[in-house]
Order: sequence, then structure tokens, then C-alpha cells
Amino acid sequence: MSEWRISNQELLEDESLLFTGNGYIGLRANFEEGYPGDYTTIRGAYINGFYETVTMEYGESAHGFAEEAQKMLNVLDPQTIKISFDGEVFSLFEGKLLRLERRLDIEAGYAVREIDWISPRGHHLRFQIKRMASFETLELMIIDYQVTSVNYAGEVQILSTIEGDVINYTNVHDPRVGAKHAKLLYAQKSKVSGNIMSMQAATSVSKLEMAVHVTHDLDFYYVMEGQSIGGIYESRLSPGETLSFRKYVAFTDSLRHQNLDKTAEEILTQALQRGIDHWYRVQRAYLEDFWDIARVEIRGEEGVTGAVNYATYQLLASAGKDVYSNVSAKGLSGEGYEGHYFWDTEIYMIPFFTLTRPQIARNLMKFRHETLEYAKADARAMGHPVGAKIPWRTIIGKECSGYFPAGAAQYHINADVAYTFIQYYLYSGDIQFIMDYGFEVLLETARLWMLIGYFDDRERFMIDTVTGPDEYTALVNNNYYTNAMAQYHLHWTYRFSKLVTEKSPDVWEILKNRLGVGELELRKMQRASEKMFLPYSEALKISLQDDHFIYKKPWDFEGTPRDKYPLVLNFHPMIIYRHKVLKQADTVLAHFLLDNETEEVIANSYHYYEALTTHDSSLSACVHGIMASRIKDQQKAYDYFKESLYLDLKNTHGNTRDGLHIANSGGVYMGIVYGFGGLRIKADGLHLSPSKPEAWESISFSVFYREARVKITIDEAIRISVDHPVELFIDNRKYLIEDYLEVTLHDNH
Amino acid sequence: MSEWRISNQELLEDESLLFTGNGYIGLRANFEEGYPGDYTTIRGAYINGFYETVTMEYGESAHGFAEEAQKMLNVLDPQTIKISFDGEVFSLFEGKLLRLERRLDIEAGYAVREIDWISPRGHHLRFQIKRMASFETLELMIIDYQVTSVNYAGEVQILSTIEGDVINYTNVHDPRVGAKHAKLLYAQKSKVSGNIMSMQAATSVSKLEMAVHVTHDLDFYYVMEGQSIGGIYESRLSPGETLSFRKYVAFTDSLRHQNLDKTAEEILTQALQRGIDHWYRVQRAYLEDFWDIARVEIRGEEGVTGAVNYATYQLLASAGKDVYSNVSAKGLSGEGYEGHYFWDTEIYMIPFFTLTRPQIARNLMKFRHETLEYAKADARAMGHPVGAKIPWRTIIGKECSGYFPAGAAQYHINADVAYTFIQYYLYSGDIQFIMDYGFEVLLETARLWMLIGYFDDRERFMIDTVTGPDEYTALVNNNYYTNAMAQYHLHWTYRFSKLVTEKSPDVWEILKNRLGVGELELRKMQRASEKMFLPYSEALKISLQDDHFIYKKPWDFEGTPRDKYPLVLNFHPMIIYRHKVLKQADTVLAHFLLDNETEEVIANSYHYYEALTTHDSSLSACVHGIMASRIKDQQKAYDYFKESLYLDLKNTHGNTRDGLHIANSGGVYMGIVYGFGGLRIKADGLHLSPSKPEAWESISFSVFYREARVKITIDEAIRISVDHPVELFIDNRKYLIEDYLEVTLHDNH
Repeated sequence: MSEWRISNQELLEDESLLFTGNGYIGLRANFEEGYPGDYTTIRGAYINGFYETVTMEYGESAHGFAEEAQKMLNVLDPQTIKISFDGEVFSLFEGKLLRLERRLDIEAGYAVREIDWISPRGHHLRFQIKRMASFETLELMIIDYQVTSVNYAGEVQILSTIEGDVINYTNVHDPRVGAKHAKLLYAQKSKVSGNIMSMQAATSVSKLEMAVHVTHDLDFYYVMEGQSIGGIYESRLSPGETLSFRKYVAFTDSLRHQNLDKTAEEILTQALQRGIDHWYRVQRAYLEDFWDIARVEIRGEEGVTGAVNYATYQLLASAGKDVYSNVSAKGLSGEGYEGHYFWDTEIYMIPFFTLTRPQIARNLMKFRHETLEYAKADARAMGHPVGAKIPWRTIIGKECSGYFPAGAAQYHINADVAYTFIQYYLYSGDIQFIMDYGFEVLLETARLWMLIGYFDDRERFMIDTVTGPDEYTALVNNNYYTNAMAQYHLHWTYRFSKLVTEKSPDVWEILKNRLGVGELELRKMQRASEKMFLPYSEALKISLQDDHFIYKKPWDFEGTPRDKYPLVLNFHPMIIYRHKVLKQADTVLAHFLLDNETEEVIANSYHYYEALTTHDSSLSACVHGIMASRIKDQQKAYDYFKESLYLDLKNTHGNTRDGLHIANSGGVYMGIVYGFGGLRIKADGLHLSPSKPEAWESISFSVFYREARVKITIDEAIRISVDHPVELFIDNRKYLIEDYLEVTLHDNH
Repeated sequence: MSEWRISNQELLEDESLLFTGNGYIGLRANFEEGYPGDYTTIRGAYINGFYETVTMEYGESAHGFAEEAQKMLNVLDPQTIKISFDGEVFSLFEGKLLRLERRLDIEAGYAVREIDWISPRGHHLRFQIKRMASFETLELMIIDYQVTSVNYAGEVQILSTIEGDVINYTNVHDPRVGAKHAKLLYAQKSKVSGNIMSMQAATSVSKLEMAVHVTHDLDFYYVMEGQSIGGIYESRLSPGETLSFRKYVAFTDSLRHQNLDKTAEEILTQALQRGIDHWYRVQRAYLEDFWDIARVEIRGEEGVTGAVNYATYQLLASAGKDVYSNVSAKGLSGEGYEGHYFWDTEIYMIPFFTLTRPQIARNLMKFRHETLEYAKADARAMGHPVGAKIPWRTIIGKECSGYFPAGAAQYHINADVAYTFIQYYLYSGDIQFIMDYGFEVLLETARLWMLIGYFDDRERFMIDTVTGPDEYTALVNNNYYTNAMAQYHLHWTYRFSKLVTEKSPDVWEILKNRLGVGELELRKMQRASEKMFLPYSEALKISLQDDHFIYKKPWDFEGTPRDKYPLVLNFHPMIIYRHKVLKQADTVLAHFLLDNETEEVIANSYHYYEALTTHDSSLSACVHGIMASRIKDQQKAYDYFKESLYLDLKNTHGNTRDGLHIANSGGVYMGIVYGFGGLRIKADGLHLSPSKPEAWESISFSVFYREARVKITIDEAIRISVDHPVELFIDNRKYLIEDYLEVTLHDNH
């Protein structure tokens, strides 16, 4: 991935880029041996969904503001391994570094660091350090440490610790990172039991506990000191000899595990018994299965294939795989946005899983069902008498947003969640999942539209005072995105009620009674959907972002120097809100998700809004790329795709140190499948509308659709192979594919 | 004022209602001897403008949010006087209370408590306790304590203390009171020097110091204990005998006084020398002068005269009289809104002073000039490159608002401040004050309109994303009030530039250069004023509160039970903003202040908005009363006037305990003068349009206008006497009054 990157800034980025995770645990790619005193490092280990509850304070509070929030914790740190040679401590920052290579192997599922180093006293040594978070046993993390002497003969001492004095990273100058609450987890006890050392820690308010257990496959002896417990191993090394050992780490927590000690000890005993080769093997096998469907291949440009698959690997490594967790904005790679789950999951991440790993998609959707009671309670706390309000940012399902104009005001998240269920249903045909989970979520969240919206005197359904996806505009009336998504949401709530009734009248009877819903309410929803007001300009032939947007004062783009971006860090929100400027795709996103306007309106809207968009949000470039494909602007499609592709890899937003932009990772995948593939799912089935960048020879990817696995290659033709017969549309023409289809593409560049 | 009010709730209200103040110091009317342990009391002593700086925290912060705020402090407490009879401690809550009377004597300028009490052991005693804050020597406060024995013979012990363990009152459930930062002032040292005891205290961040010095006119001896210092006096009392003494208290602070000790000691020495009779005399003389012009008299309904003059007395007792202070929302009667100064001063309080006590008006206006650098810095901090933004709430001139949608977004405060200077000029003709202070304030604040507003494609000047006076609507476009006030502000900025140039070209030359203003900028302001967009509905023939207000979802007034008011304490702000509901006068207030629309539009607007207004703000009833007079709805005018008159006296808003609503006190006065008197000042001079409630026989009041003192009585006629010739309009007809004029009124009920 990166060579010779040892400036502090680069190392901080690499900590995120090379993080090791499996959806349950995440470890930032910190050096085991540490850094010089003047280096900043965000040393982090995270457990998905493991949180402390902190109080929220406000300059001035008001009714219904979230009074507390959950925050992801930096947990006990098992990373440290210090090694010394005749007392000379290994550090990359002393002596002579001949070679440093770090990479993430997404086929093997580990990160590796290779080092060729001469110590200040002239000892020449080579290191290979691999780190792996097992996809098979989620609690298990392994550091596989090898050191080879080139010319050194002498003693070697290894110290491998668990560190208990952990704090969360804070930054008062950047609202995208937590500003306070650094110390939240307290080490409680350390223990040595046989060849396992462990430390347990707890929080004060949430009363959660977690533990780290460690064992090694060499015979370490253990010592405790303060908030640290360590294993020590001493040996000798001669030229040509290699010393290697494995540090097996088990994470457990009281959310998921009844007995932290017992579970961890069993895992570590088994880990040792099975040995390192086993773990590499099952990791690779898991990923083979994953890549079999998830792999994307692009021919004709160096590095693109790797970067795309890197992105989807991060999605896999970040996505929660149980009911206690979801996918946070930064995955498990950093502490930005305090580990909160946003609409990012539904609109940017789930699409990948729906197409390639539906069981993970279902799990992420079930999270919203699981936490629906909190969403109802939040709605009640605000003063809404019925319905559920999906929290804008959350860990356990409670609202953690502390600035409502760009938080709780984003009611559209209700429709975003609904959208995902609908899309999943359309891809999978899985009505059972809708009966079990989807309909309840759709109904309760749809109820809020009926509460906040109203029919005006022309019988149009209006929704006022909400914030759309674009956070440079707030508290507006008839946000196109919100209204259009609510329309879809309301319509499908009604439609699902009919589908369920048809499919299973008994289930409908039960659902109906449990949810207190009747034909009248459902018809009113359908009517609101039909009468939904979607603001439109006859003069410009564009969808209007909201009632007022196009009339606002123009932003002085020419007079705004580069260092004044992102605007949110340089202007009071109100000043930004007052101007015709976007942070991110809004109407353009709606046109992507719903494909509900004419070609002309979609193209005009794209051109109109794109010119006003700063892309200060990492959720923007990918959508603009997809919609550039949609309107056949191949150059823009390619440029935005590349922007999205390298957003973290080149740190173009300047904050990759705080964690990867996982929604953008999903966006990279969508750029291929929805963008260049032109894939859409509609009520009438699957659509493709391919449009490959000229620079590339071919693109190929696979998706699940209904019973089939569909493999798609786009070059001068579109070539589709399926393992079950599939009906689909290519450029709006319907095809039935028995096993293979090839359609030559018209040059539409 | 009130008799037999000793329930806890009533006592808390009385603490505010009977507070003692002079604009520099304010003491809540706490019992000297204290309360039972289960009683809540907000024991408070305040120095106007004396503050601590506290940090502002936010659930999520953003650029330009105020990072710190100033907060008025509860200072060292000199109120305590405990008295015991043979060891039996006096308390109203034990024994038998035969009589309790408390009142504020607004002619004499003191509060008095009279008590007739039999102790549990049967000792019958009478007390008279007066408290006075001197208007002549602002640092001086006196408690004049008398106890008379009816049947008691025995020892008396008096303990009179200064208490150092003071904290600010907090309430996490009411955003109108500070939620945190209770302990902010720390007692530093106590001292006895001759017959003076003193205590000094300091803050940690603002590094301000204050001191309380106390002496008595009896021979007390002094003891210190912990954070308390006390004087003890022991004597005997026999039936028929009276024991009396005075506790002289001097407040000093490091904002105003170089040497706290020296100043206080001189004041107390003089206080003792001159004796109590002197202080009563000068107090009465000061008030005679005040009442000579400020007194309002209403015949025909019991209690109204007293209540009106009570209101203006509170204005006098609360208004800062130096450059360090202004008038806080609660005056000096309590800690609501943390002692902050708002637009209340300009729109609700200064009008009284402009008409009756111009030197105080000038001082309050100079405060804005004095703090203009902070207002410019605040504008810069938000991202505005030029101009000044008057802080929405402040003590030292810096923005202390912690919720911008109902705080910093109220840009209208810039025009409110300008309005006051303009009105003052129109009443007084004092162009010198405009040259010295007014023009600079008008110009710098007007610059923001040019920055945030813009000419649209129809050349209309639009102002987006601001909040008007009505806080149940936020961040709207073209708020009528804001636009209309900005129009007036911009126009007069231009006009003053011409008036100053005419009057004194040299002064203009200096001003112009100092402020970097030229003809081009001023002409653009005038043009913006001329082209200002004032939203209007042709269909309804009303001024529109903003671009969208009338289209919003109706509030379900019928479905909202009484206990859900004020709405702000029961619904998330966003829910309120979404509905067609007002907290307070907005467009109606603009029509009052500017009188800029036709009779028809004014009347229609009044009817339209009044039906939607909750009056959840105490700034609302008075304005509705005035405008009811304006449209000749005598019944409503009377009803709203009474609502305003008794808002605190009957605690109709339920929070009088946190302090008096001083803006409403100004509103009571305006209800008489602007409401029933129909007084307005316009570019062409003074206008009257009297309309007395039927229930009353007569109303009389006096105001200063230009060189004249104008006394106005309204009964079946309007009778005006002047001490200098005055030209004015009565019902739009012009009169020149040499010394007396009488015009019979048409019955327009």
C-alpha cells in the first residue's frame, strides 16, 4: 500500500488505511513498538457497538434535545510489542531504515509490515509483522511477529503487553471528531491464568465491561505493573536465524458474552491448539467466498481494481455482524463521529451488501427493527404523538445528534431506512423479511410523514422545516429529496400492506392488530404519496432542492480561497445556509435513488446543482459520478469516480487520520455497479445501462438477483452470465437470460 | 403589595416583586432571618454588569458559535440579620403570625416588611424592616431594622452577617434560567476595621473582584467564622420599648472602583455621619424629581395607577447608570436569562427613558457604542468580513447566545439598536449625540444588511435566513419585521450622513475617514432601503410575517391543553417552527414601531396574527394592547393592557420567581403612552391619537419633547400643557401649543 511513509502525518493516515478489522473488532495500524515522544498517534482498538453514555450539554438547551449520547470507546490496547537486542530497543526512528513496506492483503485478510533495519549499533535485522482480525472467530485477533537476524548475535528480549490506560481521541477544533469525554473506560483488574494474561475494564455509566485476553505461542512469563500487564520472553539470536511468535488476542464484552473470561480462554486455547496456519487458511477461505461475488475487476488502468476491492474490503471489515452493531461512519478504523451510525449505512453501505452479502444487509436492516422502540421514544420525547423517528446518529438506537438543524432535522433518514427494505425486497423477493421486520419499520417511520406533513389548500402534500441530505441548507420547506423519498416510502408502506395481505392474510391480521393500523390510515398514506408536492421549476426544467433554494444569494465561489473549504469549518452555519451552495448531493441523490424524473429534468438538475456543490462532504463525489454516468457525461463520471476512489487513499479530505470514510467506500462500489453498470432495481425488475470509461478495457462484477448469481462484464459489449435464468432490462430493453447473454453496446460517449 | 403570603411559591415571587435596586445593585426580597429548611429561596444580591466568564459547550459545535459567555453573579450576601429573644430565634414560620405586611414604597424608595408576631413561648413583638438601595449613592444599601416589644422583657441578641458561601441559582429543566455554573464567586478575605466589617470575593476567569462592607449605627462587635463574618449586638428589651438600628452596606467592584476598601469605607463613614434621615430625604427627593415627569395617573379603576407606576419604578431600579451596565431581562430582581441584556432594552425599555429620563436613555445607547468593537469582532468570528453584529444576549458586549436559531439569528437587533438612536433623535433633535455615537453604530450595524441581503432578479432587496422577533419561527426568508426595520435603519443611516454633513461638514469629514465610508456605500444603503422587499398578501391584505409563514401547517390549538404552554417547554423547537403559531408579536410589532402600512393592512394583520399568537413570551401582550388601541379595538386594548399590567403582579407566566419581566414593565408604560395615548414620533413630529378605555375616567402622563415638558391628560377631551411651545399632531391634525390645548375627542368606541 505505502512505502517509506514515516512522516507523522502519513503515519496517522496509515493508522486508518491499514487498520485491521472484522466488523466486531478494529485495530488501528499503530506500530507495536511505538513512536518517538514528539509524534502524535491515535492508538486505537474498538469493539463495534461498545459504548459509554455521556451527557450532552448545550449553550442553551431546548425541549426534546438529546440529553445524553453514546460514544464508541477506545478499549484496552493489546498492540504493544517491544523488542530489544542486547538492550538496544527496536524503533524505526533510530538507526537506519533500509526498507519499510506496509500493505493490506485483502485476499489473505491481514496487514503486514516488512522492515529491513540497521540499529544504531549496527545490528542488521529484518522484521515481518502480520496482523489479522479473524472473520471466522470475530473475537480473535492475531499478531504474527517474525524477526530475522542478518548480522546480529546476542540476546533478544520481547515485551508484549495489554495497556489499560486508554483514552478516546478528542479535538476541540473539529466538530467531526468528539471534543470531550476522553477518559471513559477504566481498567479494573489484571490477571494471569496459565499462559493467558488478561485485563478487564468497565465504564461508569453504561456499566459495560470488556476484556482483552492474550496468549503467545512461545513460553512467555507475565508481570503486572500499574495499568499494564505484560508477557516477557528472552532468547538469543544468531545471524541467519529467525525468531517468530504469535500474539493471540481475544476481545470479549458484556453486551455479547455472558462470561468474558471463559469465552476468551476457550477461544485462546483453541487458537493455540489449531495454530497459525489454520487461522490463515480459514481467513483465506472466508475471503475466497466473499470475493467470489464481491470482486470487481477493471482492466486498462493500473491500480483501479486494487483500490475498488480495497474499498469493499473495508466495508466487510467494518460492518457489524450481530444485533448489537451496525456500521459507523468511520467503520472500525477511527474515532471520527464518535463511532456513530448514520444514514450512511442505508444509502451508501447496505447497497453493496444487498447485492453481494445479503445476510449482512439483513442484519444491518434488522438493527433498525431491533431499536425501533428507542426510535418511537425519541419521537415522543420531541413531542410527536405517534410514529418512530430513526436517530440521525446513534449507537444503541437512541438519538445522539447534538445539533438538530444538521441532525435530528434530517427526517429523511426515516425514508432512507424504508428505502433499503424496499430495495432489498425488490432484489430478493423476500416478502418474509418484510413481514418479519420491514413492514413494522416502514409503518412506524411513515407515520411521521403524516404527522409533520399536510395537505395544502390545493390538496398538495407538503413537508416543512426539515433538512435534506445537503447540510449546507437547513430547516427548509419541501426539500425535494425528502418529499420524493417520503413519497416512495408512503407508497410502499401501502403496497406492502397489500402484498402481505395477499401472501398471507393471517400474518396481516396479526400485524394489523399489533401495529394498530387500518385501511384508512394506509389509504391516507397512499393518498399523501400520490399528492406529494415535488418542487419543480418550469423555467429551469429542474427539480427544485426546496421551495427557496434557487432564490438564495449566490455564494462567492471566486472570492473563496481553497483554505476556506470545507466551508463548515470556516463560516457560521447560518451564513452558509443563507447562500446558494451545497455541501453534497441532494436533489441529484434523489434522482439517483428514485430515477423518477425525465431525462431532461435529471440532466438539467445535475448540471444546475453540480455547479454549486463543494463536495465538502465525502458522500458527494460518488453520487455525482454515478449521475454523470446516468446522463452519459463520461468524463465527469470518470473524474468523480477517481475522486471517490482516492478520497482516503490520497487523503483528499484531509481527515483520513480520524478514520476511513466508509460511506465513500460503499460509494466506490456503487460507482462501478450503479454508475458504470447503470444498475437499478425497479418495481418491474433489474435494469442495466452500461457506460464504461473510454480509458478502460473492461469492467466486471457480480451481484445476486433473486435466485441467481449474475456476472456482468462490460467492454465493447455487455456480457452477462447467470446460474439461474434471469429477466432483466438493458437500456430499457427486456431480455431473458438462460445462462449467457452478450449485447454489443452503442458508442454513446 | 401583598399580605399573608408565606407559602413557598408566593415568597419566591415576592423575592422578585419586592426586590430593592437602584440600577447598580439589586437585592432580592429575602427574609433577613431566613426560612425553614424545607423552603426554597433564591437568595440573591447582584451588581449590574458584574460577571464571570464561563465556557459554552454544545452537543455538537460549529464554526462561529460563542465559545464562552458572561454570566451575572450572585454576589456576597449582606442580607442576614438574625434576632433572638432569650435564645428564642425569630422566625415567621414558628409561633403565631398576627400580621405580615410587605410593600414597596415607590415614593419613598424603599421596601418595608411589618410584622406582628407572638413567639412559641408567647413573646409578643412587632417588627418594621425597611430596605433601601440609594439612588443618590449607588453603592449604598440600607436595612433599617426596628423591633418593638409588646409584652416581652428580656435579652435580645442580634447577629448581622455577610455570607460568603454564595452560588448562582440553576435549573436544568428551564432554558430560561441558567442550567449550570452555580459556583463562580469565591470569598477571598474577611476583615474588621474599626466599626466596619467586610468581605472580598473574586472570580477565577474574569478576574473581577467585589466587596461588601457593612457597618451599623449601634455598637456591634465582630466575629468571623468560615465564609461568614458577623456583627453581634446584645441588649435588653422591655414592653413598650423599641430597639432600632441600621445596617449600612456598601458594594464595590473592581470594574468601577480602583480601591474597593477605601471607596466603601468612605461611603459608610459618610453614611453613618449623615444618618438615616438624610438618606430617606435624598431618596425621596430623587424620586420626586423622577415622578414629576414619569408619573402616570389613571382615574376610574382601583389599583391601576399604582401598578403602572410600580412598573416604571422597576425600570428605574434596574437600569444601569454607567458604561459598564445596561438593563438585563430581569433587571436586578433575579437570575433568569443569566443577567443578560437583550433587544428588550432598545424596543421595550429605552422608550420610557427617552420620554422621561433621557440621560439614562443616552447611557443605555452609549453602551452599544462602547461595546461596538466586540460586535465587530463577533461578526468577524462568524465569517462576516465587515460590519458589526449586536450580540443577541450579552453582558460585556460579546455574544452569549448558545442557540443561534433563536439567538444570533435575530439580526433584527441591529436595526432595533439603530431604531432607538433614530427615535431619540426625533424626540430630542440632539444631532450631537448622533455625531458622537449614533452614526457610527448605525453605519457599522447597517453594513451587515448589505452583506447578508441581496438584490434579486427583480431588483428587490431580500434578506434570507434570519429569525424575527417571534421565536416560534426561525431561520426564515424575508421576515417582514426584519426587512421593515432594516429599511428604516438603512434609510436613516443615509439620512444622518446628510444631516451631519449639513450640520457640520468638518465632523462629517472626520467621521467619513475614520469609518471608511463614502457616498457610494451610503447610496447603496439608501437604494436597498428603497428596494426593500416587504412580503405582502394581496389576497389577505396583510403584511406577511415571512415568505412562508401563512402556508405552514396550522397548529392544533384546540387539541393543546393549557399545561402544554408555553409550547417551548413542551415541544421540540423544530415541531413548533413547522406550524403556524407565534410566541409573540412580530409583524404586529413592526406595524407598531414603524406605522408604515395602511389602516386596512395594519388592522387585517393584527387580526390575522393575533389569532395565532400564544403570548408565550412576556414581550407580546403589551404590543398587542398598543396595536389594539391603534385599530380602535378598545376592549382588546384594555384586556391586553391588564394582562401586561399584572403579568408579574399575578405571576401569570409562572416564572416571576426568576425575576421580573422588565421589558414588560416597559410595555406597561408603552401601553399607556403609545397605546391609549397613541403617541408616535415620526419624521414630521410628534403624533397623538388618544383612545381611553371606557372604564376609566382619565389618564394622564408627561413626556419630554424637544425643549418642552408636555403634560397630557385624556378624559372626554385631550388636554395638553407645555412649558415651551410645541407643535404636534392630534389624530393627524397639526396644532401649535403655546401653553395649553384642549381638544374634545370624538367617541370612536
